[in-house]
Amino acid sequence: MSRERLYLFDTTLRDGAQTTGVDFSLEDKRRIAEVLDGLGLDYIEGGYPGANATDTALFAARPRLANARFTAFGMTKRAGRSVANDPGFQATLQSGADAVCLVAKAWDYHVRVALGIGNEENLDGIVQSVRALREAGTEAMIDCEHFFDGYKGNRTYALAVARAAYEAGARWVVLCDTNGGTLPHELERIVREVAEAIPGSHLGIHTHNDTENAVANTLAAVRAGARQIQGTLNGLGERCGNANLTSIIPTLLLKSELVDRFETAVTPERLMRLTKASRILDEILNRAPNRQAPYVGESAFATKAGIHASAIVKEPETYEHVKPESVGNRRRVLVSDQAGKSNVVAELERLGIPIAKEDEGVARLLEEVKEREAVGYAYEGAEASFELLARRLLGEVPKYFTVDSFRVMVEKRHNAVGRLVTVSEATVRVFIAGGEEPLWSVAEGNGPVHALDQALRKDLGRYQKHIRDVELVDYKVRILTGGTEAVTRVLIESHDKATGARWLTVGVSPNIVDASFEALVDSINYKLLKDGATAA
Amino acid sequence: MSRERLYLFDTTLRDGAQTTGVDFSLEDKRRIAEVLDGLGLDYIEGGYPGANATDTALFAARPRLANARFTAFGMTKRAGRSVANDPGFQATLQSGADAVCLVAKAWDYHVRVALGIGNEENLDGIVQSVRALREAGTEAMIDCEHFFDGYKGNRTYALAVARAAYEAGARWVVLCDTNGGTLPHELERIVREVAEAIPGSHLGIHTHNDTENAVANTLAAVRAGARQIQGTLNGLGERCGNANLTSIIPTLLLKSELVDRFETAVTPERLMRLTKASRILDEILNRAPNRQAPYVGESAFATKAGIHASAIVKEPETYEHVKPESVGNRRRVLVSDQAGKSNVVAELERLGIPIAKEDEGVARLLEEVKEREAVGYAYEGAEASFELLARRLLGEVPKYFTVDSFRVMVEKRHNAVGRLVTVSEATVRVFIAGGEEPLWSVAEGNGPVHALDQALRKDLGRYQKHIRDVELVDYKVRILTGGTEAVTRVLIESHDKATGARWLTVGVSPNIVDASFEALVDSINYKLLKDGATAA
Repeated sequence: MSRERLYLFDTTLRDGAQTTGVDFSLEDKRRIAEVLDGLGLDYIEGGYPGANATDTALFAARPRLANARFTAFGMTKRAGRSVANDPGFQATLQSGADAVCLVAKAWDYHVRVALGIGNEENLDGIVQSVRALREAGTEAMIDCEHFFDGYKGNRTYALAVARAAYEAGARWVVLCDTNGGTLPHELERIVREVAEAIPGSHLGIHTHNDTENAVANTLAAVRAGARQIQGTLNGLGERCGNANLTSIIPTLLLKSELVDRFETAVTPERLMRLTKASRILDEILNRAPNRQAPYVGESAFATKAGIHASAIVKEPETYEHVKPESVGNRRRVLVSDQAGKSNVVAELERLGIPIAKEDEGVARLLEEVKEREAVGYAYEGAEASFELLARRLLGEVPKYFTVDSFRVMVEKRHNAVGRLVTVSEATVRVFIAGGEEPLWSVAEGNGPVHALDQALRKDLGRYQKHIRDVELVDYKVRILTGGTEAVTRVLIESHDKATGARWLTVGVSPNIVDASFEALVDSINYKLLKDGATAA
Repeated sequence: MSRERLYLFDTTLRDGAQTTGVDFSLEDKRRIAEVLDGLGLDYIEGGYPGANATDTALFAARPRLANARFTAFGMTKRAGRSVANDPGFQATLQSGADAVCLVAKAWDYHVRVALGIGNEENLDGIVQSVRALREAGTEAMIDCEHFFDGYKGNRTYALAVARAAYEAGARWVVLCDTNGGTLPHELERIVREVAEAIPGSHLGIHTHNDTENAVANTLAAVRAGARQIQGTLNGLGERCGNANLTSIIPTLLLKSELVDRFETAVTPERLMRLTKASRILDEILNRAPNRQAPYVGESAFATKAGIHASAIVKEPETYEHVKPESVGNRRRVLVSDQAGKSNVVAELERLGIPIAKEDEGVARLLEEVKEREAVGYAYEGAEASFELLARRLLGEVPKYFTVDSFRVMVEKRHNAVGRLVTVSEATVRVFIAGGEEPLWSVAEGNGPVHALDQALRKDLGRYQKHIRDVELVDYKVRILTGGTEAVTRVLIESHDKATGARWLTVGVSPNIVDASFEALVDSINYKLLKDGATAA
């Protein structure tokens, strides 16, 4: 059966750059472009050459792309100027992009109020701009800004804008829900009406997530005929974000009603890179990945409930809407209070510890986990601590070092010039396995935990090379008021600068410093274990 | 025009408790139930009485709700037992809930494989269970688990399950997309078909966000006839979460095509509490709020300075799909904004500080709040600190005491009998207003903050009587990684045993002890201010 081609247009580097707090460097943009290209997208919009130094430099030395057409964003020529003497337009035209996407106003109200020009003048600008691109041999697209609000306000004019772009030779006329307020059924109806005037094979859709319907709106537009999809990786974008390609792409490839009708340049093999692509973007942005993200989130295929766990392990396909491996993700059966033996066995298997459900060790581990969770430990967020616990029960973790004592002091006092300052200082005494003399270190830090961390890793003797590149990147504290006395739970995330690995450890104590120290010690033990360090 | 009633069913405390990393305490559940009730939801599902200690205790002493029906989750009676001798079922039945929602399998495949019983036996369990609830005078609902997958596998049986529940007298038959894999158009078609057999006024919809379509699926089901909506605040829930009521509710109230047809118990006034409700839940979970959340996110109405900014200030309504104030949120544009001042004025009024919007103090306070929020303070959760800040700027807060210095030490060492113990000790030196000699106290505690708290309140001279009954009841820590260096934000909740009053204060510093101390000092100053203590 012949399937219709859908084209994927990524605007992470352009509209995604409008996200609050996002500020891509040139190097960031190059790296992200390569990741997107590896997924098999058709168009990668790099930015707005001429508008800022980064984007100009990006187009001056384009990233090498194997698949995608590198696309420049720009504006249609200004009223009162010809295409030839509009420097902004010329910067876009001469950027060397494979394709150019020009934004044009489709709402007559904004043409009048924001541009202050006549409706015909606006149409003429679109036509002249598209023709100029065509003459230069560049693929042209028009983003019809505020299309849906415009259509509701003045249907005839919004359609005239779209038609002018199409008739002037634009490869794509993109209908934009700029404010993000249109609901799926309304959007579908409007796209259907537009597709009576312009072939769907030339219509694109660009939605925003202001009602949490950006993905549904995109799918509705495809049903109504649109054949180009604009969106961003991880749903980056202004306000609530753009349509999330990280959710749309697997839906297109894995849902039978879509994959039977449509094809894209994303192959099943490329789809398996999706989870990694999503994480790389988070890493570049220094953001904690969204655990609940559809398809690619750490929890997307996680199950907590014990009652379901044994069934899931037996027959995952009836509890999972798609296979986690198909997007490069994995199943997680969470070890928690509600867990049963199946959860524990599944988790151990994933960690490379094959063990039978009937094995006595499973019952012991489950018992231990439950006891510890009852006093406040939480292992579903701290896999490294869980692995240490499990392997310790199985006798696989050497005693690398023993903490003899530590002391941490925080003092706020007036310094020599009479200013109030706070200093934190820690000392740690450890015995390294096989050593007779304790190693005794002292360090300062921003606060007590930082000072302890610094002191602990200052001198661990022969283990020093293993921990040199490890840094503490996140630190979370929760006070639990379960019993008669409050306890503190600390979660620490460590990062190995050399390998990029991240792991989470947990510590629990009535004393926050004690709990933090426990998690720090677990983190180091975990690293030593993974490195295969020996105790003697 | 008469509008149809839609019923909102919140399952934050039950299905939301399945979220990875979420672990509600009894006190958390009570507080969240009250927040949900204040929004005007129809049903609040509190948990599964009998299944765990927290939920049993919650139903034993129910939160006081003004609007919502407090609902228990449970399972239909087990095969081979009567309703009378199934202890699980009886725990639900006798929980004292206003309504009970029982989960039942609607997919014949799972009936056979997971339950290991016959199709008729499953139907009989549903009928017996619903009847028993009805006889006890309890409103009954059936959650038809895996309904959509079941319908695709065996349409006749899935319908038979729904019909059995309806005919036995269930007020609601809820169609659940348990695996979250159904797409909107398919879901809409199936709900429409079901609505031919069972009146839509008895049909509910329960969706999950595994394809990022949970909200759209919910709206599609309403279009197809369903009149009860199940979801969670902030889209909490297993894997990718449940349908997000925080997005659905404003869409129902603010989008003309919906509000013209449907009504709920959420009034426009209650809707204005939505942003705050969302933040309170994050605060309880100690999670950073999702800035990009539709409607309630900090960025939901934010525009990055650029081509749109000035136009938005002039004519926000053509750039915003709804008014930010309608959900209690606000517009954020990088220019001084009137909305900010209005918020400050409203907040001051609420605190009993009447002030005109034009008053210079309002601008100064707004400036100060913005500067402090930029370095990490958060006043939304710490009203006592906000009130202190405001009254200080207005010259209304006496300088009761000055901290000269403090020192806190945590030591882990072997004690006299060779056991590792941790001790925390703090000293605090303060000058009381008008006093010449410092008061110098030392105390021990469970941890550094507790020790500091004990030392600080050990001797505050003539203020002692004011703080005698105050205790620290909650303590939250968040590490913020905004700039080049991480800072720590501490939120402290204090409780006056004598009056029952509770108040929250905030402290921010790179040093966790420093931040905690700041919040402790604020807490005491707040108490002295409220008591009308004088400085001399």
